[in-house]
Amino acid sequence: MRVGFYQFRPLFGRIERNVRQVVNALRQVDADLVVLPELAFTGYYFSSREELQKLAEDPDKSMTVDALSALCRERGFHIVTGFAEKRLDKCFNSAILIGPDGIEHIYRKLHLFNEEKRYFDEGDIPLQVNTVREVRIGMMVCFDWAFPEVARALALQGAEIICHPSNLVLSWCQQTMQSRCLENRVFAITTNRFGADRRPQGMLKFTGKSQIVAPGGKLIHRAASQRESLFITGIDPAAAHDKHITSLNDLFSDRRPEFYGTLIK
Amino acid sequence: MRVGFYQFRPLFGRIERNVRQVVNALRQVDADLVVLPELAFTGYYFSSREELQKLAEDPDKSMTVDALSALCRERGFHIVTGFAEKRLDKCFNSAILIGPDGIEHIYRKLHLFNEEKRYFDEGDIPLQVNTVREVRIGMMVCFDWAFPEVARALALQGAEIICHPSNLVLSWCQQTMQSRCLENRVFAITTNRFGADRRPQGMLKFTGKSQIVAPGGKLIHRAASQRESLFITGIDPAAAHDKHITSLNDLFSDRRPEFYGTLIK
Repeated sequence: MRVGFYQFRPLFGRIERNVRQVVNALRQVDADLVVLPELAFTGYYFSSREELQKLAEDPDKSMTVDALSALCRERGFHIVTGFAEKRLDKCFNSAILIGPDGIEHIYRKLHLFNEEKRYFDEGDIPLQVNTVREVRIGMMVCFDWAFPEVARALALQGAEIICHPSNLVLSWCQQTMQSRCLENRVFAITTNRFGADRRPQGMLKFTGKSQIVAPGGKLIHRAASQRESLFITGIDPAAAHDKHITSLNDLFSDRRPEFYGTLIK
Repeated sequence: MRVGFYQFRPLFGRIERNVRQVVNALRQVDADLVVLPELAFTGYYFSSREELQKLAEDPDKSMTVDALSALCRERGFHIVTGFAEKRLDKCFNSAILIGPDGIEHIYRKLHLFNEEKRYFDEGDIPLQVNTVREVRIGMMVCFDWAFPEVARALALQGAEIICHPSNLVLSWCQQTMQSRCLENRVFAITTNRFGADRRPQGMLKFTGKSQIVAPGGKLIHRAASQRESLFITGIDPAAAHDKHITSLNDLFSDRRPEFYGTLIK
């Protein structure tokens, strides 16, 4: 299976221009699954809920989704992308799985980061795994990395690849995602953006270094911090089936869930 | 609070000699809490359950515990040590919290590593936190590091310091414990042994590098791999109370346990 990421620099509020950049970048790509950054088309640093509501799109009537679906049809691949999702009066920081036939699943970020709390609604639907070409795909968004329960819940549902659109401003995620892949023995594709959102209320700089990690925590590839980067590689998703860390230790069957009750209180 | 570790090289089966080494090493120490390695007195690599049953001790009639209790009285500190615990026909790979008045709590390793499964019984009592001088102490043993649920359950119960006796033969634990301290914002003291157990059935080499990590994941100190190391430092356990990673993100109150049900199935 050929998977990868496209790390780029969205321009705030310029949805059409950002969609065009992604479509142009991916038009020649030979892949099965490409992961884009969080909020890849709107930009990240909203100044108010009103501004977000203006830029967010209903995925069912979205030029962006239409363009990405057309791209998936043309190239025969799937995309996971961050997306500002509007539903009636709510706005979610979502990840969408799009294939040749359109939207296959939407995940709404469960753990909002910092000022996102001022304008986004919290995710309200369960973590779920979807099948793409017989490969089980889980989605999480950016700050979900800080909560071990998220990758764990996806892996326990059979995820072989965790797709992780991000807009990282801190430096801890990449190393922690290696721990997530070590403890869950899954692949993870973390796609970050680079550049900055310079807005009236301030400036946020994003840290790039998108990466793909293998089960066991080994880094397959990490991009540079402030550079456009399209990276595609072949992986064997079946490597995520083997949860053994020694011949006698299967990290999943060794779990003792009867002692983990505190985690859901 | 002055906390630390004593990394040393136990000799297999020579309980009295190992106790004497620890007592001699700690007799001049000015500390509140010292963490010793897993199975610090028996050694680690048992060749059979029968051999373990011969070497394991009932903590209530144990010369080892008596010597450590006397040391705690003399110095006015607490010790957390790995201990081969015998109870009737069962043997547990345990950690014991000992103070001037004797045993305060026993934790029995929930996740047995590799050949331990052939001779130890699985832990059978809940993860729990104990108070030492108004500081909340959690205990876990070695391979528990690979299961994010363990440190999480202790931290959610209020642990400020996780004491982690270990006999590590792999290289992944130290970095992962930094992730545990980042995601839970607690201190962790991982005490490993060094040297090797050369036994009829084979040889196991232990990797040292005992460490203390601060909330946030910052490494306070890491010992060398193959060297005796007594390290004591002052920490402020209250640093573990603040779970904020940004002004708007408290890593504990931001959790969404209603979406984590998969973890206890």
